[in-house]
Order: sequence, then structure tokens, then C-alpha cells
Amino acid sequence: MDLLSVHLDKTIDTPLYEQLYEFIKQEIVQERLPYGQKLPSKRKLANHLEVSQNTVETAFEQLVAEGYIASQPRKGFYVLAHGDLEFVEHPRKKEISRPEEASSVLFDFSPSKIDTEAFPFPLWRRLNRQVIDESNHDLLLLGDAQGDRELRQAIAHYVYHARGIDCDPDTIVVGAGIEVLMQQLLSLLPSSTIFGIEDPGYQLMVKLIRHFGFSGHPLDMNEEGISIEAVRHLSPDYIYVTPSNHFPYGTVTSINRRNQLLQWANETENRYIIEDDYDSEFRYVGKTIPPLKKMDFNDRVIYLGSFSKSLIPSLRISYMILPKKLLAQYRERLTFHHSTVSRIDQHVLARFIQEGHFEKHLNRMRKIYRKKFEFVYQLFEAYKPSIQLLGEQSGLHVVCEVRNGGTEEEILQRAKQQRIKLYPISYYASKNAVVTHPQFVIGFAGIEEKKLEEAVQYIIHICQK
Amino acid sequence: MDLLSVHLDKTIDTPLYEQLYEFIKQEIVQERLPYGQKLPSKRKLANHLEVSQNTVETAFEQLVAEGYIASQPRKGFYVLAHGDLEFVEHPRKKEISRPEEASSVLFDFSPSKIDTEAFPFPLWRRLNRQVIDESNHDLLLLGDAQGDRELRQAIAHYVYHARGIDCDPDTIVVGAGIEVLMQQLLSLLPSSTIFGIEDPGYQLMVKLIRHFGFSGHPLDMNEEGISIEAVRHLSPDYIYVTPSNHFPYGTVTSINRRNQLLQWANETENRYIIEDDYDSEFRYVGKTIPPLKKMDFNDRVIYLGSFSKSLIPSLRISYMILPKKLLAQYRERLTFHHSTVSRIDQHVLARFIQEGHFEKHLNRMRKIYRKKFEFVYQLFEAYKPSIQLLGEQSGLHVVCEVRNGGTEEEILQRAKQQRIKLYPISYYASKNAVVTHPQFVIGFAGIEEKKLEEAVQYIIHICQK
Repeated sequence: MDLLSVHLDKTIDTPLYEQLYEFIKQEIVQERLPYGQKLPSKRKLANHLEVSQNTVETAFEQLVAEGYIASQPRKGFYVLAHGDLEFVEHPRKKEISRPEEASSVLFDFSPSKIDTEAFPFPLWRRLNRQVIDESNHDLLLLGDAQGDRELRQAIAHYVYHARGIDCDPDTIVVGAGIEVLMQQLLSLLPSSTIFGIEDPGYQLMVKLIRHFGFSGHPLDMNEEGISIEAVRHLSPDYIYVTPSNHFPYGTVTSINRRNQLLQWANETENRYIIEDDYDSEFRYVGKTIPPLKKMDFNDRVIYLGSFSKSLIPSLRISYMILPKKLLAQYRERLTFHHSTVSRIDQHVLARFIQEGHFEKHLNRMRKIYRKKFEFVYQLFEAYKPSIQLLGEQSGLHVVCEVRNGGTEEEILQRAKQQRIKLYPISYYASKNAVVTHPQFVIGFAGIEEKKLEEAVQYIIHICQK
Repeated sequence: MDLLSVHLDKTIDTPLYEQLYEFIKQEIVQERLPYGQKLPSKRKLANHLEVSQNTVETAFEQLVAEGYIASQPRKGFYVLAHGDLEFVEHPRKKEISRPEEASSVLFDFSPSKIDTEAFPFPLWRRLNRQVIDESNHDLLLLGDAQGDRELRQAIAHYVYHARGIDCDPDTIVVGAGIEVLMQQLLSLLPSSTIFGIEDPGYQLMVKLIRHFGFSGHPLDMNEEGISIEAVRHLSPDYIYVTPSNHFPYGTVTSINRRNQLLQWANETENRYIIEDDYDSEFRYVGKTIPPLKKMDFNDRVIYLGSFSKSLIPSLRISYMILPKKLLAQYRERLTFHHSTVSRIDQHVLARFIQEGHFEKHLNRMRKIYRKKFEFVYQLFEAYKPSIQLLGEQSGLHVVCEVRNGGTEEEILQRAKQQRIKLYPISYYASKNAVVTHPQFVIGFAGIEEKKLEEAVQYIIHICQK
């Protein structure tokens, strides 16, 4: 038989057993060794090939393991594989690369950008160095599915002191972004659950809720916050709100409206308010606005917090504070779940908060953003009322309204020609909520201070007729 | 009116405006200032309180922002809040701590544990130091939703050289664990999709599939892998398999069975095979077993890979290689999705792979695990056949079968008394698949080498009648 014709090359790097394995495999794949064929004994083949019996044995073991051949006790080895084995090596395909878009944009006013210049790299490096240490080898293993206790305690401490929320660390769930946490929450709810969402609002949340098969309805906003009439008319099970700083307009939900929303939630069982407190840290006049969760004495508010705006978007650490009833469901039903955040990152962040660096960082960033905010305001001042900024003195973006008769389409067209990325309000609103004058969300946080004037002049130029 | 009775204390740390704000807020909350009540003018109040008008203005602004009061042009400020404001500060609740269980366990034979002693901490620290650098400040912003290109290229390079899979980096999706990736995949499928899953098998996958409302059915295993008769009988849309090293038995799916599975998938549209290649790196005889994906010329295999076993479970980095048709759906429909892995971690891992450290680490770990594996085998040798190890020479666990008439319950009872955490096969199997003799999955990787003998002696002692 052909098998004895194999030539093993002792001068090349490939081990002899592997050459033999590869040869026999090819003989089987190409059906020169048919199904059922008996192979020569290991001893005979080793003698013939002038290799050790060990070499043949290793090759046979691999072929057995992969199912090409099988051994029958006291009989020897037989070919086991048959059928059309399409096991042919193809030359490596060329990589298809996607077109890179980012480089062609001059200024991107995305509201999700932050100032990256002021991040405390040396400190973050030092904390990483401290955590990535032989003495912490237990951190390499899986931790608590809700997030490590150290981080949850640090978060509980932070939300108590910064936001007045008094929560048990055990009610906190840490996750790799608000989307991950929302998906976990959604997976606990019956598919008939109805959601009401601020309109204009965070469209990603609308998409996410609808993607998972739930009905998500826009709810009108007015100067006091989400319309309570709209809430009562829709009668949803859950509402999603941003009461401290409405996205994107910056409206603060009034104390009356907060009260009305909590009363609405308390009226029947299984009504909940999802409070997304996405950038409450940045307010440039007075104190920060207290969250709805602080007034939630009936445990009806699901509080969402994130380090995306306050620290780094790419760190992917967010958290939710679950009412006890939902927490029980979470623990009972999400038993397959592991934490979605690296434990090393969790402990670095926990130390960053515990050692007081987070507070200092927030104070520093608040000054930087306030300066940028005031500068932007000042630059727009001369163009009132034909170009007007709206909203509160807070957050990492402003909304600019163009009242000179220009249309959104014209302005976006000019922006594109100038390679400026603008975000019209229509991205964030249903058709009903779109206003007469074109409006744009202008994320200023991510533009370098020294380029801010140039960047804003582009917008002003583009918005003028 | 009462408002003029406020006493501001200039000797304490709290700013004057905040004292005034707090006073007025309490007056409103306790309904001493009723709805509609006009407030004194800023000038009048400032004069009366002997503070600057600025102080009063700041306090009023905060009250306006939070909706307690409103201004009417040329008229002044009015109380806006009414209703039962339950806004009372409560004393901070005591934290409820959960009982800690881990410390009471002497040896935990969980198959998800790894050897943490040999992790290259200094190298990992160095790579973190290099990536967490001012010059990389762009890494702080959000990156590609599928994972950064650098990491996807490194993974493509790795799976090509280590597993023979030739894939475009653009078909790779990086995520914070197999569960996250599976949830994304499941969210693209119609709810009528039927899954077949190896039995015994990875029960977490069964729970996850069922939690999301899909029907997941156990499929029998035999010595060639998942039963093709069972697949054809159930006729699922997707099957979940671990062909290179079946979990938990270690069976390698034969080349025939691989061919049959691929043929089955190719027969009609929308049939896919999910291949979980969870610990293919660790095989102690011969070469590693090639993955099913390598033979997948019709793009019907979804390949799942993870760095949990090969590097660190707590890093939470996994990946899937999507067939082009599913990739198109992923990109079209998961538009709300951001990456679930920190970009700093992504770049650290990319460098770890690119610079050849991952390969070296795998070689090193393979030696360590082989040594542990062989030692465990040797320790059990004397107790054959009443205690017998099953399976291939691979992976981070073995399966031990107890043939002395003892029941699973008795053995678990004794293990508990001795504070030994054992994982019976019944955790990983449906009722149908449970065998006559009790079997236990013994994860040996996480037990320190110097304690391995003691740990195994505990098992042997516990398993003996």
C-alpha cells in the first residue's frame, strides 16, 4: 500500500510525527486510503520509515483524536473517515478593509465626546501598576456578577456624597455600558411591557428598547420636564427620563413634575421610572440638581449612572441601582451572567474614587468645561437672535437654534462641504417633536481649547445665510 | 412674611447662598411658603439679610433650576412647587452585607478556574504603562463597536496561526464575555429559532438561550461527538457544539461527524453551527485539534473564542467570528451598540498578542497544566477501577467516575462536610444524560501545585466508601 511510500524529511523543522500525520491525513482526505482500510502496525511502519515507534504512535494518536482513524483492540488501526471531506487548505484571503471616515472630518461636534487632554494619565498608570500586582493574583479569577464589592462600595459612597442617594452597595449592578445594563433589565421584563421615552431624547435608548421587541413610545416634553398628561395618556409601565439635565435640551425637571412622576409610579405595582443621570456632574451655576432617586421612598426609580462623561467613555463602566423587587428577579433569573467589566479596571476605578481622585478630577473638569461653555456662549452672543443658544448652563453640549430662515438640510449640506460634523435635533426626536427653526446639538467638550474659536466660527459661518 | 426671619451664619463653611437656598426650600417643602406666594425682591432680601445681591441671586437661580420657584418678567419670583413633597432627608441606612461564602471552602474544583501564579504581571504592567500614555489620548473616546481594529487584527493573526482559521478581521466582534456576544447574536434571531445543545454540555449556554425566550433542546453525545441522528430528529436552526474538546467530557468530534454536521448546516438556508473553542489551546499530546471553522467553506460556522482560559477569566475579553450574512444583520440592526470592552484593555491585549507574548504564555501554561494534569492522573492511578478518570489528555479539568456503589448525593454530602467544592456531572447534563455511576468534573488548573496532592487526596478520600 501507498502508506509505505511516505518520505519523511529529517532536515526540516516540522517534527517527524507531524509529517507522518499530515501524510496519512492527506491520503484519507483524498480517498487514497478508503474507509475501513487497515493501517500497517506501528512497529512495521516505524521500521520501514526508520523512525522510532514513538513517532508513529504520536502521529496515530493525533489521527485517532481527530477521528480520521480508530483502533480496535488487538486488531490495529483502521481508517474511520469517509464521505466528501472538503478539508482542503485554501490560500489566505486578503483582508477587506473598511473605508476610514474619521480622518476626513475637520471638527466633530458629537455630544458624546469629552476633553481628553486633561485626563490624569500618570495617576491612572500608577493605580494600574498598583492593582496589576502579584499580590492580587486572585483578581485574575471571576468575581461577583454584580461587580466587585470594592467598586460598588466606592460607587455607593460617591452617589451618597455627590448625589444624595442613600443606597446599599448590594443594590448596585456594574456593567460595560448603559446598553449592557439596560439589556439585562429588559431581559427580566415581560414582552408586553410598554415604555415611554422623552421626545426629544436619547435615541439609542429608543432603538435598544425596540430592538428587543418592546414598544417604546415618545412622550412630549415641556418646560417642567416630561409631560405628565402624556404619561397618563400613554399609561406605560416604564418611563425613561433624564430629570437633572434633559438630553439634549438641558431642561431640569421641576420639583412638581418630579413629585407627579413619583406619584404616578406609586399608584400601581410594576410601574418604574428609569432615571438616566448621565452628566449631572457638570453644572456651571449653583449646585448640582438632586436626582429623582433621592426622593424615591417607594423604591420605584431605577437609577443609571456612568463614568463615560465624568471620566472616560472608552472605559466602559456604568452602573444601575435596582429597586429591591427587581434586584431579586435579577439575582434569581440572570444566573448565567458574569460581570462584563474587567476586575483590574474595577479595582483601579474603586481606588480612584476611594482616594479622592475622582472628586478632584470632576472639579478640575468642571472648570475646564465651564470655561469652554462660557467661551462658546460668548462667541455666539454677537449673532443673537438669528443664531440663539438654548438651555441651561450645564452639560457638555449646547443646543443652537438658527432663526434666519435657513433649513436644516441647507445647513447640513454646507457643514458637509466644510467637513464639519453637526448633529441636528432631528437625530434625537420623533417627527412630532421637531421644531420650526432648525436646531443643532453642539458638543463642545471634545474640541481642543485652542481650536474652539475656529471650530465655532465654522458653525456660525455655516449657519448664516 | 417668614422669609425675612432667616438667619445666615457667616462663621460656618456652607456658602451663604446655599444656606439661603436650603432655608427657602424647606419653607416650601413644609408648606410655610404656599404655592403662588410672591417672594421678596432680590434687592430687598439682600439688604435685609446684609448679604450681596449676588448671593440672593445665586440662591434664587438654584431654586428656579430645580423648579421650586419661577420668575415672571418684571414681576418677580413666585413659589411654583406644591403638592405633598416627600422630600425629607433620611438618616443614612446601614449597609446590608451578604454572607461571604468563599472563605469557608478549602478547595474549589471549579472548571472555570485557571492557574494565577504564572501570570506575567510585570509584562502586563509594562504594556498597560505603554498604552496609558498621553500620546494615546484618543483611546479615551469611544472606538469601533466591533472592537478596535488593532485587536481584531491581532486576533485574526492568532486564529490563523494557532487554529488555521483564515478570517477577515472585519468579521470579528470583540465583547465582554461569551454571554454578551451570544446575547447580541440572539437579539438578531427570530423568536421561533430552535437551538440544539450538547448534552452534557455548557449549561450556562442552555440557561442563556432559554432566558431569552428561545427553545433550547439537549442533544445526545456519543463517542464521535454530538449525535447526528439527534440533530436530524430535532431539526434545529442552530446547534451549539464544542468539537475540539467537548465540555465536560473532552471528546473530540470525529472528522466524519464534523463533515456530517457541516453537510447538515449546508442543506438549507439559515442553519448555523456555533462552535465554542473555549480551551483548544491546552492539549497535552500531539497537536491541537483543528476547529470546525477551518472546514467551513460555506460560511455556516459562528466561531466563539475567549481569553478566559488562555489568559485571565476576569479580563472579560471574548470574540466571535460571524458569517458574512449574520455580520450584515449585526451591522444593520445593532446600531445602538457600543463596544463592551475598555479600549485600553483592547490595546494592551493587542500588543500582548502582536509582540509574541501570548504564544509564549500559552506554551508556558501548557507545560504547567500538563504537569498538573499528569500529576492528577498519577494520583488517581492507584484507585482504578473503583475511581476512574475519563476523557482526553487536554483541558483544565478531568472527569472522575466513582464505581464503588457510592451515590452522587453521599459523595457531595461528604465533600460539603470536608469543605471541598465538587461539581457533579448532573450540573452539566439533562436528566436523560445522567449516567449510572456518579461523575465529577475536577478543575485542577486553579489549585496551587504544592497543594495539588493534598487537594486530590481529599477527593479520593471523599469518593471512597
